Amino acid sequence: MKVYIIGIGLIGGSMALDIKTLNPEATVYGIDSNESHMQEALVLGVVDAAASIEDIVDADFVILSVPVDVALVVLPKVLDVVGKNTIVFEVGSTKAPICEAVSNHPKRRNFIATHPIAGTEFSGPSAAIKGLFEGKTNIICEVERTAFKLQERALDLFKSIGMRIRYMDPNAHDKHIAYVSHLSHISAFMLGKTVINKEKDEQDIFDMAGSGFESTVRLAKSSPAMWTPIFKQNKIQVVETLEEYISNLSHFKDLLVNDDYDAIFEEMESVNRIKEILNGMHAKT
Amino acid sequence: MKVYIIGIGLIGGSMALDIKTLNPEATVYGIDSNESHMQEALVLGVVDAAASIEDIVDADFVILSVPVDVALVVLPKVLDVVGKNTIVFEVGSTKAPICEAVSNHPKRRNFIATHPIAGTEFSGPSAAIKGLFEGKTNIICEVERTAFKLQERALDLFKSIGMRIRYMDPNAHDKHIAYVSHLSHISAFMLGKTVINKEKDEQDIFDMAGSGFESTVRLAKSSPAMWTPIFKQNKIQVVETLEEYISNLSHFKDLLVNDDYDAIFEEMESVNRIKEILNGMHAKT
Repeated sequence: MKVYIIGIGLIGGSMALDIKTLNPEATVYGIDSNESHMQEALVLGVVDAAASIEDIVDADFVILSVPVDVALVVLPKVLDVVGKNTIVFEVGSTKAPICEAVSNHPKRRNFIATHPIAGTEFSGPSAAIKGLFEGKTNIICEVERTAFKLQERALDLFKSIGMRIRYMDPNAHDKHIAYVSHLSHISAFMLGKTVINKEKDEQDIFDMAGSGFESTVRLAKSSPAMWTPIFKQNKIQVVETLEEYISNLSHFKDLLVNDDYDAIFEEMESVNRIKEILNGMHAKT
Repeated sequence: MKVYIIGIGLIGGSMALDIKTLNPEATVYGIDSNESHMQEALVLGVVDAAASIEDIVDADFVILSVPVDVALVVLPKVLDVVGKNTIVFEVGSTKAPICEAVSNHPKRRNFIATHPIAGTEFSGPSAAIKGLFEGKTNIICEVERTAFKLQERALDLFKSIGMRIRYMDPNAHDKHIAYVSHLSHISAFMLGKTVINKEKDEQDIFDMAGSGFESTVRLAKSSPAMWTPIFKQNKIQVVETLEEYISNLSHFKDLLVNDDYDAIFEEMESVNRIKEILNGMHAKT
């Protein structure tokens, strides 16, 4: 089995590690425009060898795990090269633009659009970890546009690394993911900004911040290079979520200004059922 | 050693557990207006026996761990009763109002105002855990107003359960804590509200939400009964933090509306140094 990973970061690198563990006979090739990442991936044993796009003609799998703006450019080129038995998948956090970009490509049936809902706030080959996808959801879009035999091979791979599958329309994906992922990132980044701007003497933050602050701001460690194109591609949905979030925060502030503490209590109490929603997340499999 | 815990929840209960572990000869009494919490604390072994405020006259320690509005009413009554060798401390998330409330109390020197920066999003006696305070910061306000011998006894206790001490003016405490704690809670509650309101079919949240959303929204599980009076007591500071947070979010939204992705990249990149700040948090001891 020949597997090519284009972009060996957190997601691509973690897939490489799981594939190598589960398929000792597989050769995993890395393709990365960042030479130091490529070398790091080789040294860490995340991939077996370096390759270039011309090599992928007889690949079994091509995994495209690059920032979503780069994916729009690279995916058509990858499809131009691959043979008829290659399944190509892409793992970005927006799905409508990438589906649109290859909608009329003659090898559209060699491609499957996926979004594995898995990750950490870290990036690069050193962020790759085994078992990242165990118990996580993989959202697949426009599955009917992928050749049946290639679908099957991709699904077998996703299941072998522990993922459960959900099928979704790409526009619905982009709309929902704006709420449960993209907004969380902006919320964390702007919380970090607010606190950093205020607390010029950072020692005050070190000393007073507890695990609650850390949890809420964790995603502000994320890579701007990865997230800027996501926000760009999902602009309309993200702006809508931000407007609703800002409106909810402003309403809460008004309640406080007006000393309406009964309403503030009710606001919080009605959101408390997020407990069951989060527990439901863990119960899922 | 006789220790009385008034309000046996996450903080008071966790202190009780650590004190019992470190001082097998100590008797820890619980006082709680919630009868089912009292019974639960006895069954779980968080406290040794139930007591009432009249009993605390010969206490060595009285720990007041109740919502901050209740503390304002109960602390003067506690001080009315205690003997001259009793040290009373209170652990709420606001410090100026409680210092003010007992500023002129004849037994002010029996009281030490503290804020242990420790906790989880859970509450009640069943939330009590051993070792909660290990490596955490305890902020002490107006230390000079506590009798020297009683200060010493309180500090020995805090150090024995693993806390490091920081001294701070109560107003400075309330101002800083609004940024690094109170704002995080509102941010999480309103993020939860935004997503719940949008996603009527909760299964979509279960399926698409990952660990990032969970981390950002975790504090929205917190107790409204505990947090409403905190926001009330720290209203002016909290409103200020909220205004700055909303302004930062609105600015980010405007950058997105205006397609200024270079500026969006820079916004995120400049907040990325939260990594070092959070690492600094873990390095502290």
